[in-house]
Amino acid sequence: VEKHFVYRANDLYEFIVKIFVHLNMPFDEAQIAARIILEADLRGIHSHGIIRVPTLYVPWLSHGYISNKASISTINETPVMLSLDGGNGMGHVIAYKAMQRCIEKAKHCGVAIVTVRNSNHLGIAGYYAMMALEHDMIGISLTNSTPYVAPTYARTKMIGTNPIAVAVPAGEEYPFVLDMATSVVTQGLLDILINHNEPIPLGWGIDGSGANTTDPRKVLDGGAINPLGASDLMRSYKGYGLGLLVDILCGVLAGANFSTGVTRPGPKAPAHLGHFFAAIKVDTIRPIENFKKDMDQLIHQMNSAPKVEGQERIYIAGEKEFELADRYNREGVPVYEEAVHLLEQTCKDIGNEFNLTPIPLIEND
Amino acid sequence: VEKHFVYRANDLYEFIVKIFVHLNMPFDEAQIAARIILEADLRGIHSHGIIRVPTLYVPWLSHGYISNKASISTINETPVMLSLDGGNGMGHVIAYKAMQRCIEKAKHCGVAIVTVRNSNHLGIAGYYAMMALEHDMIGISLTNSTPYVAPTYARTKMIGTNPIAVAVPAGEEYPFVLDMATSVVTQGLLDILINHNEPIPLGWGIDGSGANTTDPRKVLDGGAINPLGASDLMRSYKGYGLGLLVDILCGVLAGANFSTGVTRPGPKAPAHLGHFFAAIKVDTIRPIENFKKDMDQLIHQMNSAPKVEGQERIYIAGEKEFELADRYNREGVPVYEEAVHLLEQTCKDIGNEFNLTPIPLIEND
Repeated sequence: VEKHFVYRANDLYEFIVKIFVHLNMPFDEAQIAARIILEADLRGIHSHGIIRVPTLYVPWLSHGYISNKASISTINETPVMLSLDGGNGMGHVIAYKAMQRCIEKAKHCGVAIVTVRNSNHLGIAGYYAMMALEHDMIGISLTNSTPYVAPTYARTKMIGTNPIAVAVPAGEEYPFVLDMATSVVTQGLLDILINHNEPIPLGWGIDGSGANTTDPRKVLDGGAINPLGASDLMRSYKGYGLGLLVDILCGVLAGANFSTGVTRPGPKAPAHLGHFFAAIKVDTIRPIENFKKDMDQLIHQMNSAPKVEGQERIYIAGEKEFELADRYNREGVPVYEEAVHLLEQTCKDIGNEFNLTPIPLIEND
Repeated sequence: VEKHFVYRANDLYEFIVKIFVHLNMPFDEAQIAARIILEADLRGIHSHGIIRVPTLYVPWLSHGYISNKASISTINETPVMLSLDGGNGMGHVIAYKAMQRCIEKAKHCGVAIVTVRNSNHLGIAGYYAMMALEHDMIGISLTNSTPYVAPTYARTKMIGTNPIAVAVPAGEEYPFVLDMATSVVTQGLLDILINHNEPIPLGWGIDGSGANTTDPRKVLDGGAINPLGASDLMRSYKGYGLGLLVDILCGVLAGANFSTGVTRPGPKAPAHLGHFFAAIKVDTIRPIENFKKDMDQLIHQMNSAPKVEGQERIYIAGEKEFELADRYNREGVPVYEEAVHLLEQTCKDIGNEFNLTPIPLIEND
C-alpha cells in the first residue's frame, strides 16, 4: 500500500471548489466539477479523482486550453433528442448539464438521448449514468477519449479506452452501476503502476512491435493497451468493437473528433471530444415496484451463486464502489502522498492557499 | 475442415420455408424465419443457422412447445416506446416484427425502444440491428438466453451468452455490425468442437469446480463459459457486467424471465425470454451525408493502422461477415454434413420431402 493521507470528503470538496473558483470558473460550475471529481475518489477510482486536478484540469484552465465557463449551445433538438456543443468547457460541467437535460426529456417522453461535441475529459462516466437513478430511470453515459488502445491485429493507439457506463435502479439493493473502459485496463492505472515501478501482466498491453509486454512504460510510449478480451484467442475483437462503437456514438454521431483526431486540449486546438447520454424511464415500460423487485431478485441470485474455491463473494457491478463510498464518507477519503504533493505545488503555482488538513491515520484497516 | 455440402442460398431458403409451413406456420412468418436463419449461414455464423432447424425449431414447433403463429400483443405503448408480449411464438418472427415497429416509431420520433417478453430464441441478434440500416438508422438488438455463463468468481451457469448487436450505416464502406456474445465464446461453438472432438484453449470456460478446462464437455456439463475477459486479471467482470446488463434490459425491464429462470421451451413451461431493441435515426442529430463520410473515414483509419507482424488485415466489426455473405450468395452456402443428415432425418420424422440438391463442390477454396 502506497503512503497516503486521509481527508474528510467535504474538506476535499471545498478545496477543489476553491481552486476552480480561483481559476475563474463560475461558483456553481466549480461545485459541479468538484462533486464529480470527489465522487471518483469516494468510489475508489483515484485515477479519475483529485489527482487529475493538478495533472490535467489546472493546467488546462490556467493556460486557457479549455474555457473556464461552459458555454453550451444547442445544435439540434426534438422532444426526445438533443445535440449539444460544449464550447470547449470543463467536461464534467458539460456532461452534467447534458445529462440533466436528458433526464428532463425522458420525464416527458419516457426515453431520451443527448449527444455532445466540443467537450473535454469528463472524469468518471458512471457519475452521469447514476444521475438517472433518483428518477427511477436507467442512465447510460459514454465518452470517447485520447487514443490508447490498438484494434485487434494493430500495433498502435487508434481509439480511446472509451468507457461504457450504465446505471440501473434496484429496490433494497445497491443499484447496478457498470462503469467500464472497453480496454482491459485504463491508461490511468498504468500511470499509477509506472509510478510504483510495477510490471503488468502479459495481456494488458503491447509494445511498439505489437508484442505483449510486462512493461507499462512501453505500452504508453509507442505501444498500446489491448481491448477487453486481451487476445485474439480470447476474442479481443469484441472489446475493440465496443470501443469503436463508443467512438461512433460519441465522435461520429455527435459530430465531435474521433479516433486519432481526439487529443489532449492544447495551445493549438481543443480536444473536441464527444459524449453520448441516454435515459429510460422504467415505469413507461413496467411498474417500477415490479422492476425493482425483480432487480433485487436478480442481484440475490448472482450474489448467492456457488463460488469458485477461495472466493468469498460474487459482486454486482458497482457494489464494491458503493461500499467503498459509504466507508470513505464515514472514515475519510485516502489521497496518495504523490497527489498531495502535486496539489501543494499547483496551489503554489496559481497562488491559492493549500489548506487541507488530513485526518490522523487509523492503522487498523 | 469438416465435410460439407454447398447449396444455393435460395434453395436453402425455400427448403426452410417449406418445413415451417409444413409445421403450420403462416406462410409469411415462415418466410421471415427462413430468411433470418439463412442469413446466419450466409454470414458464417453456422451455429445459429440451418443446423438449428432440426435441433431446435422443428422439435419445439412439432411438440407444441412454442406456438406456430406469433400472436403478438401490446402491453404498453407511447410514441417512442413499445412493450410487447410475443405469445410464445417463433423468436425470429416476434423479433422481426418488434424491430419493424421500432423502426416505424423512430421514423416519427428520431429514437425508439421496444421490449419483448414471452419470446424464444431469435437466431442471430445482428439481423434485427441490421434492419435499421436501410432506413439510415443505428439499430440495437439484445436478447437474453438460457444460462451458460458464470459470473466472475462463480462456478455455475447463471446468465446466458446474452448477445449485444449494434448496426451503424456507413457510406462507401460496409456498415459497422457488431454482433457479439458477452461471453468469450458461445455454447454453439462448443457444441461444434465437441462434435469434432477438439479441445478448447484455457480461458474459455470452467469445469464444475471452477477451474479452467480444455474439455468443452466439462464446460457444458456442470461447468460454465467464462464472461468476455476470460479471467479476473483480464477483467472478466466487465464481460459479466455486460451480460448482466443484457439480462436486465431483456429480462427485468421487459418483464420476461431472467438468469436461471430462462429455460429451453418445453412441455412444462415456455422459455419466456426477452429482447430489447432500439433505433436511432441519424439525421435527427447530424446530416446523414456528414455522418456517413465520417464513418468511412473512421473505418479507413482502422483498416490502415500499422499491423502486428504476420497480420494481413485489421477488420471492422461485420466486415468479414459481409464478405462471406457476398461470396456465399455467389458460390453457394456450405452446410456441414452432420446438419444435412439431421435435416434428412427431421424431414423423414415430420413427413416432409427432403429435396435439397447440393452444388457440385469446387475444391479451390
